[in-house]
Amino acid sequence: MTARTATRKERELLFDTLVVATGAEPVRPPLPGIDHEGVYQLHTMGDGLLLHEALSRRPGSAVIVGAGYIGLEMAEALHARGLAVTVVEQLPSVLPTVDAELGALVRGELERHGIRVVDSVAVTAVEGTNGGLTVRGEPGLELGTDIVLVVVGVRPNTALGRAAGIETGVRGALRVGRRMETNAPHVYAAGDCAVTYHRLLRTDTYLPLGTTAHKQGRVAGENAVGGDRAFEGSLGTQVVKVFELAVARTGLRDHEARAAGLRPLTVESSGHDHKTYYPGARGLTMRLTGDVDTGRLLGAQLLGHVDSQVPRRVDIAAAALHQGMTVDSLSDLDLSYTPPFGSPWDVVQSGAQAWLRARDAGSHGRSRRPAAPTH
Amino acid sequence: MTARTATRKERELLFDTLVVATGAEPVRPPLPGIDHEGVYQLHTMGDGLLLHEALSRRPGSAVIVGAGYIGLEMAEALHARGLAVTVVEQLPSVLPTVDAELGALVRGELERHGIRVVDSVAVTAVEGTNGGLTVRGEPGLELGTDIVLVVVGVRPNTALGRAAGIETGVRGALRVGRRMETNAPHVYAAGDCAVTYHRLLRTDTYLPLGTTAHKQGRVAGENAVGGDRAFEGSLGTQVVKVFELAVARTGLRDHEARAAGLRPLTVESSGHDHKTYYPGARGLTMRLTGDVDTGRLLGAQLLGHVDSQVPRRVDIAAAALHQGMTVDSLSDLDLSYTPPFGSPWDVVQSGAQAWLRARDAGSHGRSRRPAAPTH
Repeated sequence: MTARTATRKERELLFDTLVVATGAEPVRPPLPGIDHEGVYQLHTMGDGLLLHEALSRRPGSAVIVGAGYIGLEMAEALHARGLAVTVVEQLPSVLPTVDAELGALVRGELERHGIRVVDSVAVTAVEGTNGGLTVRGEPGLELGTDIVLVVVGVRPNTALGRAAGIETGVRGALRVGRRMETNAPHVYAAGDCAVTYHRLLRTDTYLPLGTTAHKQGRVAGENAVGGDRAFEGSLGTQVVKVFELAVARTGLRDHEARAAGLRPLTVESSGHDHKTYYPGARGLTMRLTGDVDTGRLLGAQLLGHVDSQVPRRVDIAAAALHQGMTVDSLSDLDLSYTPPFGSPWDVVQSGAQAWLRARDAGSHGRSRRPAAPTH
Repeated sequence: MTARTATRKERELLFDTLVVATGAEPVRPPLPGIDHEGVYQLHTMGDGLLLHEALSRRPGSAVIVGAGYIGLEMAEALHARGLAVTVVEQLPSVLPTVDAELGALVRGELERHGIRVVDSVAVTAVEGTNGGLTVRGEPGLELGTDIVLVVVGVRPNTALGRAAGIETGVRGALRVGRRMETNAPHVYAAGDCAVTYHRLLRTDTYLPLGTTAHKQGRVAGENAVGGDRAFEGSLGTQVVKVFELAVARTGLRDHEARAAGLRPLTVESSGHDHKTYYPGARGLTMRLTGDVDTGRLLGAQLLGHVDSQVPRRVDIAAAALHQGMTVDSLSDLDLSYTPPFGSPWDVVQSGAQAWLRARDAGSHGRSRRPAAPTH
């Protein structure tokens, strides 16, 4: 910020107020062989073009390390390009951002499309072999492949901010207040480089999501030009498409609520995206989390077909969470209904009613699960 | 209730508490010829079966009197059965429950599928002619047709309730309090036979909708067996499918808010159901109504493709309305995003931002409309 020397590649820009929005970068694990030709990460346009170029050479197979959002989206994308795809995940469940019960349904969807899923295996090395690659992992993994994609999450890109004296917080992200101000005078930070205030936990977290970045950027920008706006906080709302499935969540899961000192109950229920007498109805699986002591809604997870309005259904729960509504009061919401598109009680509401029945039946503190629905 | 004589067809049932749920019946206008063979209304299963039987005789054409929800749904249904369909509406716009700007788009969708739409015509008579029917209307309508469907709304079915001494209110519906209690001791009423408390207007209306009936029935039932629950009110949220379109609304429209003494501004905006760089994105038309004085959200209307999550998007607005949120605070909602399903600012939020820009530009009190989007 105070550098006064400029080389040919440097330019000096003065500022009254500054917004640092340096984003995140992919975690690059200390994996022997990660620099090998044929091993890719995804961050910049350049990374994408490199992979695109590799695909033009028609590789037959890919191993994707990491079964999070990007890993699963890339599994679908590479499958669509004709590659035999294997996803390797260190944890026991794919898509670890949702409960394992939903992760199992996602795994089924991947396998239905011919994706091989290897769970509970930590990749330990990538080796070059006869023009191809071998991925090794523990326990007992040895996989020959043409290309490897390492997508194991991101970390905040904070070099510039730290050089400017900005303090860091959770996960090393730039620390900001609700107005997105840093400790450095007239310097704001926003997006994936900064911490994320969590509306329910009332504390900083790190949730690098596009929606959050947009909101934080708007707040930082407004304040930078003399406004006074606060970031109202994230609920961690997110959704991913995995082949024909949409999987979405908002708010806290059981273990997250418990870690925050709450007494959560998570109840799984199933319903249909619209009345079954109208053609084309499909099953939905809802997992609703509420606080046993206060009845307050804490979170919702929903899985269903891509055409079943899963994202916007979770958004209804997100709007309720934003306002601190109880599980019971979800049934008071006046939601739209017509047989081709829904039910008089939407699955968000029938899920709330199932939660109340489970709570009143005294099953406090443990997860309840009915028979699996058909999708 | 106190009758002690029982004929063969009467039974006497004693009660501690009673819930009257006699529903609504179609308005039967004093139309010369309405009793003619080939003229149908829709209410009971029997009515549906009669029409079904008529269709088995393969009529070539149908005139539908009334372009509300049922009229448009039946236009699509009869079109699917191969009939040439004409819809006749007394008002200048089809689907008069949404603004004329959206009504015009709905009309376009009907005409695109070969439905003939006649607006601003009051049907005056149906006559039998050579085994067929002629529908006459003012000004200047004379239409030959095989069948006629008269679907011009419903009215509360209150004969039983009135006989029991229950007072009536708006539109002659049974008057109830928030606990769904009538003036008659231990007698509740719920659903289409009863008035509807409006959450925004804070007064009784008549909004015979399935969702409202379900909520009122649950409240009445709970109170009838000793509970204590209040109906939290309707927002008039509703949606209809018209061929490939979904049209939904919640809350107040401009003229309704104005009639309630508010100072509304309605702003139309357009957006896409998901990021346009992901295949298959489609346009959405949003009309957002807010109160200029307080900034409070008053209502939302949304029109788009049947696959564009229109119903649940309006439900997000409905959840916000339920909680009395401002238009501005819609942008604070943490909604789910992934490119195949949405945008970092959902159309509900970009519509809110468009509303604020219009308000701040000083266009108070009149409707603003940008160029029409493509669908």
